Amino acid sequence: MKNPKKRIIQKCPIPKSEHPYITMAHGSGGRMTHELIDKIFIPAFGNAESQFDHDGAVLKSPGDKLVVTTDSFVVNPLFFPGGDIGVLAVNGTVNDLAMCGARPLYLSASFIIEEGLAIETLWQIVLSMRSAADIAGIKIVTGDTKVVDRGKGDGVFINTTGIGEVMRDLRINPFNIKTGDFIIINGDIGRHGIAVLSQREGLSFDTVIKSDCAPLSDAVMRLIESGMEIHCLRDLTRGGLATALVELADTANVKVEIQEDLIPVLSDVNAACEILGFDPAYIANEGRFVAFVPERFVDKALAVMSSMGNEFLPAVIGKVIDTDAGLVTFKNSYGAELIIDMLTGDQFPRIC
Amino acid sequence: MKNPKKRIIQKCPIPKSEHPYITMAHGSGGRMTHELIDKIFIPAFGNAESQFDHDGAVLKSPGDKLVVTTDSFVVNPLFFPGGDIGVLAVNGTVNDLAMCGARPLYLSASFIIEEGLAIETLWQIVLSMRSAADIAGIKIVTGDTKVVDRGKGDGVFINTTGIGEVMRDLRINPFNIKTGDFIIINGDIGRHGIAVLSQREGLSFDTVIKSDCAPLSDAVMRLIESGMEIHCLRDLTRGGLATALVELADTANVKVEIQEDLIPVLSDVNAACEILGFDPAYIANEGRFVAFVPERFVDKALAVMSSMGNEFLPAVIGKVIDTDAGLVTFKNSYGAELIIDMLTGDQFPRIC
Repeated sequence: MKNPKKRIIQKCPIPKSEHPYITMAHGSGGRMTHELIDKIFIPAFGNAESQFDHDGAVLKSPGDKLVVTTDSFVVNPLFFPGGDIGVLAVNGTVNDLAMCGARPLYLSASFIIEEGLAIETLWQIVLSMRSAADIAGIKIVTGDTKVVDRGKGDGVFINTTGIGEVMRDLRINPFNIKTGDFIIINGDIGRHGIAVLSQREGLSFDTVIKSDCAPLSDAVMRLIESGMEIHCLRDLTRGGLATALVELADTANVKVEIQEDLIPVLSDVNAACEILGFDPAYIANEGRFVAFVPERFVDKALAVMSSMGNEFLPAVIGKVIDTDAGLVTFKNSYGAELIIDMLTGDQFPRIC
Repeated sequence: MKNPKKRIIQKCPIPKSEHPYITMAHGSGGRMTHELIDKIFIPAFGNAESQFDHDGAVLKSPGDKLVVTTDSFVVNPLFFPGGDIGVLAVNGTVNDLAMCGARPLYLSASFIIEEGLAIETLWQIVLSMRSAADIAGIKIVTGDTKVVDRGKGDGVFINTTGIGEVMRDLRINPFNIKTGDFIIINGDIGRHGIAVLSQREGLSFDTVIKSDCAPLSDAVMRLIESGMEIHCLRDLTRGGLATALVELADTANVKVEIQEDLIPVLSDVNAACEILGFDPAYIANEGRFVAFVPERFVDKALAVMSSMGNEFLPAVIGKVIDTDAGLVTFKNSYGAELIIDMLTGDQFPRIC
């Protein structure tokens, strides 16, 4: 790191008059790659712990257990109502750490850029990443950049790998789910997928549906610090709520019963889904999760989540009612019960 | 991890009669994504510490300092003499850990796959990754898969992030380079770039030039364990030896003098470079590094490297002769001295 204290400059540090677009030479490892690192990545990401001048970052080791998670982001389009690929690339990985009960520490960021991307666009994306990282309290410490020929990529793909620390005795995972657990969701579902799809297809609704993209680590840390027992957490990304619940029921070998009417969905999202023929339960979210908690901690969980601000509208949506059956059912207000499967086709490709 | 003790099956677990090619549904997060995870990634990568059923892997924390490094691999073609994108994706990251003096521990693996890739090809690549990981002694613990539309990718791109541990008092980095340091290279240069280019362009030479792709962590661990002082290590990837030396001289603000005749280059590589108009000093390697060591440890370093097998042909190629000048010169046998710059164009795109 050349200048850890450098202030974030909002104007793109490589003026349009110099190199307006990414060329293959930016990925050669030579002068042009170094210009990107020195003028774009270090000014945007630099902090006291980042080390972009070396092959890796040497960091203080977390005390107890280490959590590692990785995600590649290929969202199309790069910018959508409520966010962009940069915010998504930070929050998506921060949220996977949170779902393991981990406090976020360090993030790596690697870019696969298509020849011809405007450098100004890259700058906007890295600024979004820095801002999202600051909000989530995670440090971007190392990275990589590759450039692929025009027509062999799609603007930019970003991989982030997150490292977090988890307290010694914390066990938050699917194998910990128990009969009787209540299932709490932190807010309304379906907005991220609809926001991206609307932008991509040029659809417009009465009001703009914004992505729910948000970091979840703060909420999870507060749940943990409240001293309550949490059996499992899962964010509701690709495949949506339904796929996440089926995955968990399969892994934990339990029967989950959801009251469909209790799932919060905005009326605009419901309307968009009806027009497009989608089920909100299968639509991707980027700031939504379910928590499996014993009954005696439900009120506390709801209180903690409610204190997290307007974006959080927590609700109990169902229960684990049996073991020895990897099964999820949705019950509606007429008492009809439907067995739910994971997403089976490719309803929503490239939403994250 | 569903079955950590599962034996690696050499035959592709998804038969051609089922799904011969990757579809957008494989990236949807639903059933087809799970089939890839359960039938391809877990059988290939599974080990006692991998956790593909959860959002991240919870692992034992390294004792002293943590090293994190990340790389995206976009090599074209995917298979080349001496290796493939899978071997490269493991060794490239293992080597970046080694260059920080770190013992490799954990690896994440994330795939961006183009719709239409043969599943058999993906299987060959993940088997290569497992084999390379076993050789390097690193565990693949978590991953991700995304699918992009046909014509928006190039077969498959792979991101790996490596986590290693470094002993408390070890300081191996560019800022530690000192006047008087000898510069040792571990073998001949230029093979990886020429091997990939030959395959891509359909060039043939008298003998097949094979990539030098290899893990370097074992050699680095032995150098460290021998008790010798090592000031800096750097692998000679994109931009080759020349770019790596200029980067280091810039960062450390020192003058480096290289005896050009001492740089080992195979005669076939030299011949290929002459025909193609390339300079071997700028060609990428994937199993080559330079070590900066004080004079009194040179013999020990050469002895340790020589003991590493046939692929290692260590040689002293130059010295750090001054401070306060970020400068590299190559001297030839006639005494002529040339000031060296980083690679300035895009000589070799997509070689890693």
